[in-house]
Amino acid sequence: MPVITLTTDFGTADAYVGVMKGVILRFAPHVTLVDISHEVPPQDVPTAAFLIYQAELFFPADTVHVVVVDPGVGSERRALAVRTSTGMFVAPDNGVLTHVLTHSTDYAAYSLTRPEYWLPNPSATFHGRDIFAPVAARLAGGMPISRLGEPIDDPIYLPIPTPEFRAPDVIVAHVLHIDRFGNLILDIQAEQLPAAPMFELAGCRIRGLRRTYTEGVPGELIAYIGSTRQHIEVALPGGHAARHIGAQVGTPVYIRSDPMSEA
Amino acid sequence: MPVITLTTDFGTADAYVGVMKGVILRFAPHVTLVDISHEVPPQDVPTAAFLIYQAELFFPADTVHVVVVDPGVGSERRALAVRTSTGMFVAPDNGVLTHVLTHSTDYAAYSLTRPEYWLPNPSATFHGRDIFAPVAARLAGGMPISRLGEPIDDPIYLPIPTPEFRAPDVIVAHVLHIDRFGNLILDIQAEQLPAAPMFELAGCRIRGLRRTYTEGVPGELIAYIGSTRQHIEVALPGGHAARHIGAQVGTPVYIRSDPMSEA
Amino acid sequence: MPVITLTTDFGTADAYVGVMKGVILRFAPHVTLVDISHEVPPQDVPTAAFLIYQAELFFPADTVHVVVVDPGVGSERRALAVRTSTGMFVAPDNGVLTHVLTHSTDYAAYSLTRPEYWLPNPSATFHGRDIFAPVAARLAGGMPISRLGEPIDDPIYLPIPTPEFRAPDVIVAHVLHIDRFGNLILDIQAEQLPAAPMFELAGCRIRGLRRTYTEGVPGELIAYIGSTRQHIEVALPGGHAARHIGAQVGTPVYIRSDPMSEA
Repeated sequence: MPVITLTTDFGTADAYVGVMKGVILRFAPHVTLVDISHEVPPQDVPTAAFLIYQAELFFPADTVHVVVVDPGVGSERRALAVRTSTGMFVAPDNGVLTHVLTHSTDYAAYSLTRPEYWLPNPSATFHGRDIFAPVAARLAGGMPISRLGEPIDDPIYLPIPTPEFRAPDVIVAHVLHIDRFGNLILDIQAEQLPAAPMFELAGCRIRGLRRTYTEGVPGELIAYIGSTRQHIEVALPGGHAARHIGAQVGTPVYIRSDPMSEA
Repeated sequence: MPVITLTTDFGTADAYVGVMKGVILRFAPHVTLVDISHEVPPQDVPTAAFLIYQAELFFPADTVHVVVVDPGVGSERRALAVRTSTGMFVAPDNGVLTHVLTHSTDYAAYSLTRPEYWLPNPSATFHGRDIFAPVAARLAGGMPISRLGEPIDDPIYLPIPTPEFRAPDVIVAHVLHIDRFGNLILDIQAEQLPAAPMFELAGCRIRGLRRTYTEGVPGELIAYIGSTRQHIEVALPGGHAARHIGAQVGTPVYIRSDPMSEA
Repeated sequence: MPVITLTTDFGTADAYVGVMKGVILRFAPHVTLVDISHEVPPQDVPTAAFLIYQAELFFPADTVHVVVVDPGVGSERRALAVRTSTGMFVAPDNGVLTHVLTHSTDYAAYSLTRPEYWLPNPSATFHGRDIFAPVAARLAGGMPISRLGEPIDDPIYLPIPTPEFRAPDVIVAHVLHIDRFGNLILDIQAEQLPAAPMFELAGCRIRGLRRTYTEGVPGELIAYIGSTRQHIEVALPGGHAARHIGAQVGTPVYIRSDPMSEA
């Protein structure tokens, strides 16, 4: 029972996601299908890149993750199948796998050039259905990834934010993602923090790390080690941090050792 | 592992869709469940009719498609099970299968009159759970469709828009559906177009067909052969065509041969 | 093929629900996953309590229902596994199982105190992934519930509204839930009504019970025996009752025998 996950910007009002699943089930009737998200904002490749990075580590390693946020569909952009140590990925070559590849110790990538494994007469506007779905089904069914096309070593990477370590002891981190609760997920991970960190963002200051939401004072921002790969998060217990302080993806967060800390 | 798909106007905030799946799994524990859409606007039968038409062709032919948009639930309206060459359908007899039946070369339809295959004591307000779900499970489990009720030959059809071919060479097509991206799906298919078509809608003119979104100029409408059964679509690359020009379902699209074309 | 259902306030834009499913499928690859709802308003325990009550009775009795609306995650609040005669439940001990337990003739509840059945190094902010998902997978795989922790007999109950029976013949019922269609589900069930009931709420009067939506006059409220465990509902045929009369969860509904009735 291999698993195929789907991450798209198709929304769930239209039939497009269901259609992809129909194609997958024609070629691989025994797979288990899991939706990661179909509410990626239209054509927002960075958000999709974050979501699949957040999710993939928790799935069995023979899972096939299909990611279709594809503004260049029908153009000359390549289509990819990628195998890492933690999963397999089928996606357009537009940077949507940037976080996955950056955090993978090793990978093998192939350009999908073998139309005999696609639907016949693929459309120019719906490769999710005509190329990615049937290819994912073949992979889930055990087809070696190398049969799907030519190996490549230059997949496209997005210019993603990373923390800047500025002398003497200032780190400039950034908001990488804002979730449904308004929590800010930063581009810095726990092991990169100074002892007794102090955070400043959007005119607000946060001292130290909390362990849970319930340790905070309602109405005051807290920082804590989040649930996604030790990334630091900022939340407003009982509220929506992003709206409260006007933070957006990319907002800088200045981090220093807290001079008032006794630690 | 037969497949059962669900298309409803129940939304996903309430438990109604989950409840239908629970009933299905009690009678057919081995089916694979696929959601087409639960965001059909409340009681919008034409939208549901389009979505199931868009989706069904891509599923295995033994798939059972359950469509529950049912303003007349509990009244004397009939409930149907239908078999075509491409799938099986369970739905109220209110026109929601119009596109499917119109595009099917042959079908057999039955009025669901055998309560021994429903939940006992069916409610008057939730036939999705009490009638359609258990009937779909029986069909997926292999029960012959003819056991579910009486054959009928007069299912209800919606008055759906179709292109008008006006002399000498003007076609009046219509917007049949608007998708999440704001793309307009027309009621005319590729083979019905004149050579070198020119489109006029909502005061805008489009010359010729493009192959992909990326061939267009940002800010200018394009027309192309869409991914749904060769229906022609109109899009605004990088934008939302429907909002941009104020188009709605039913908006007329005038199509002529382009006098400026060299073709 | 046991079933695991999920009810959360995680929304479907983020990857959190998919992540929980990945963890479940690592421990129980053969389960069938069903979403009840992920659109519970953030931290709205009463709504989640109603939805799982509405859904669970329709699933096979060996189904495991995971309910994660968990404002106290990471605090000292207990985590529970519960078995009733109709299902198994995994949830924080915050009252989210109130309706289920109130309507169950018998149950056995356990506090989850055995970390060897969780993910290693559980986070303080995402017990859905780190505790509830792996525990649900073990239960679905056949592990005896008593191995998961210590038996308890004092689960937390929410103070939920119940009808007040006031002398001489007035009942004060309440709106318990408002669904996607704007229908009001009351806290009173059919067998608790007087003969020939008359309802008053928000300045409107409704005489008697209808059987279906189609028996009503468009623009006039109707009352009827709803599809959820014989709870009485109020609807506006063709409209949205809650918005029309300004009803909210908790709005009182006064019920008397209709003096004008001939019954």
